[in-house]
Amino acid sequence: MLAEIITIGDEILIGQIVDSNSAFIGKELNKIGIDVYQITSIQDDKQHILTALEEAKNRVDIVLITGGLGPTKDDITKHTLCEFFGDTLIQNDDVLLHIETLFAKYINTPVTDINRMQALVPTTATVLMNNFGTAPGMWLEKDDTVFVSMPGVPFEMKNLMKDEVLPRFQEKFNRPFIIHKTVLTYGMGESAIAKKIEQWEDELPSFIKLAYLPNLGRVRLRLSARGTDEKLLKDTIEERITDLHILIGDIIVGYEEDESIEALIGKLLASRGQFLAVAESCTGGKIAQSITTRSGASSFFKGAAVTYATQSKTDILGVHEDLIKKFTVTSAEVAEAMALGVKTRFNSDYSIATTGNAGPSKGDGDVEVGTVFIAIATPNRVFSEKFVFSNLRERTIGKAVNKSFELLLNELN
Amino acid sequence: MLAEIITIGDEILIGQIVDSNSAFIGKELNKIGIDVYQITSIQDDKQHILTALEEAKNRVDIVLITGGLGPTKDDITKHTLCEFFGDTLIQNDDVLLHIETLFAKYINTPVTDINRMQALVPTTATVLMNNFGTAPGMWLEKDDTVFVSMPGVPFEMKNLMKDEVLPRFQEKFNRPFIIHKTVLTYGMGESAIAKKIEQWEDELPSFIKLAYLPNLGRVRLRLSARGTDEKLLKDTIEERITDLHILIGDIIVGYEEDESIEALIGKLLASRGQFLAVAESCTGGKIAQSITTRSGASSFFKGAAVTYATQSKTDILGVHEDLIKKFTVTSAEVAEAMALGVKTRFNSDYSIATTGNAGPSKGDGDVEVGTVFIAIATPNRVFSEKFVFSNLRERTIGKAVNKSFELLLNELN
Repeated sequence: MLAEIITIGDEILIGQIVDSNSAFIGKELNKIGIDVYQITSIQDDKQHILTALEEAKNRVDIVLITGGLGPTKDDITKHTLCEFFGDTLIQNDDVLLHIETLFAKYINTPVTDINRMQALVPTTATVLMNNFGTAPGMWLEKDDTVFVSMPGVPFEMKNLMKDEVLPRFQEKFNRPFIIHKTVLTYGMGESAIAKKIEQWEDELPSFIKLAYLPNLGRVRLRLSARGTDEKLLKDTIEERITDLHILIGDIIVGYEEDESIEALIGKLLASRGQFLAVAESCTGGKIAQSITTRSGASSFFKGAAVTYATQSKTDILGVHEDLIKKFTVTSAEVAEAMALGVKTRFNSDYSIATTGNAGPSKGDGDVEVGTVFIAIATPNRVFSEKFVFSNLRERTIGKAVNKSFELLLNELN
Repeated sequence: MLAEIITIGDEILIGQIVDSNSAFIGKELNKIGIDVYQITSIQDDKQHILTALEEAKNRVDIVLITGGLGPTKDDITKHTLCEFFGDTLIQNDDVLLHIETLFAKYINTPVTDINRMQALVPTTATVLMNNFGTAPGMWLEKDDTVFVSMPGVPFEMKNLMKDEVLPRFQEKFNRPFIIHKTVLTYGMGESAIAKKIEQWEDELPSFIKLAYLPNLGRVRLRLSARGTDEKLLKDTIEERITDLHILIGDIIVGYEEDESIEALIGKLLASRGQFLAVAESCTGGKIAQSITTRSGASSFFKGAAVTYATQSKTDILGVHEDLIKKFTVTSAEVAEAMALGVKTRFNSDYSIATTGNAGPSKGDGDVEVGTVFIAIATPNRVFSEKFVFSNLRERTIGKAVNKSFELLLNELN
């Protein structure tokens, strides 16, 4: 069972937006055993859409189209769909009623003709009601290939997928089981790991695939098993991971079944009734933001002080001015004082503190661009480490955030 | 001059990573007048790669390939490139020396055979030296189409693009000028705007295209002009935007030439020597993180207090316990007290404060999921507004961040 995702719209091609929709769709299809064979992003152009639809029809069983719908975009896409399916547009009364209801409830302007035209759909389309927007989803079929067209607004697409599309796929198609397990490692490079586990990798059964996913100082190893016997797949993956532990157990920090290191930390802290607070300078709030992106953070996270200005380190965290003068603001001593300060002031059990120079130019602390001190305070002690990450700002911030979580997880394990 | 981006790797297709590389490449190519006609993401599979290369060759002048390189991935991609170009692999001594130098300088493990094999390249390839990693970029040509292969690690690819690829494109190809100008609006929906500017839109010259880019309560209008006469393009865009102001000047907050509302705020504050501080509850650090992602934030940003726990609002920001008891933690009164507290404690001129319930379930404050109070303190006053954004966590946080910046920008304008 193969799928292709077609995204329509110039905004992806000119790089104005990043295509996060396809990643979401890929992940969700994968969970129910449907493989994405290809993702194709094309221009909002009639001939290009027709060609892409035809090519996809010959490659795959399912085509998911996102984008090209919406009050100001409907025109080309829906007429092109009609041409491809040899169909015409007709008004769908349920959609029209839904549009009018949405406007009455949430929008304080009258319904325009442009909005009403969103109720036009091809006569052979099954309408998939979009509860979060005015552009309906559409399900069409041609020569045994299913085509699903959805608006490109991410939360509208996501809800259509969950409520309408995925349940229909599950009902209509026989699918194999696909099981992923991702091993989180740190502290060793991709090729060094590859060398250490070479024989283990060669001996994996053919139904298990291994992928190396390096990112900002972490390598994740993803095992994917596919087949009809779910228990066999699960058991084999567990077996092989046990063997993997013998080889590189020292660099494995945990597993990810849709989980991040932040989530692992949260689980450990919450289960012990302990709390974390964070003091951020060069990471500028990214640690706090990474923690609070997921719901449930209040069960283990007290908060953070983003002390970007030097004076704020004193005013908010109580770091002594003399200490800053003596050691400079980017130092192990200041990082540790920040960690202790934020732990006391937020009344937490653990804390993380970062201070450094993410660049692009040297700060008043005189340290090299990319230098970051990370301090961790636990109920018993405080310590810090110095890192020189990169001369690229974004990369230094990203690596500092990841490394902070690793250092903390080490203390919790 | 048309380009296609081919990304190789299962991790994009199964949604484990979002393809941000293509957005970067699209943006950079667009700046120098090269159009991305299509983005194609394919599996790490020999036949699939061969088909995609052949199809792309027939569609475009330039093919940019990312991914499929790296110590554990080289094998399939490089051999497939050789098959496609009728070539064989040969060791490149410069690359080998570079790999050995990188290992000696940054990596504390010996160079392995897997690493050494990264120095193998097709004999007809021009090597593009990757200063930030071990996998080299490669430039190949076939039947008047240029193929550039780069590793998928974002910062390695970005530097290869800037240092090696873009300069070569600029030298090799004649390109038209492409000028974009994006108008930032708020407070009006896509279709309402479309109706208001319908006639203006119809009268745009054929060399100017208009795109509507709606996102979390903001609609951006992107004008793109293309042609050989740069001055004509710029003048015409300015002219049409002047006309646009007459129609919807009340909802235009600024312009974006690669700029965000955060950058606009930063510019205004820095030019006046004024500073901002932020108190975040439900937005969890995302406002601070949005501000500090760009360099130069220290010229206008003092810092932030992420007071996630109720007690922290009292301990860190000095919000009175009685006030919280009387009005609940999610209230206009508490938001305003947070804004005043953070302004005083961080010694800033302006401040933003957020408190709300992003969901997914009702907090102890008893307000509906999606309710957020945003307070703004200026040198002269403090005020707040109540919003009910969404029952989706991510969306509520995103909208609260955007709305906070809008409210602040209004005060600065």
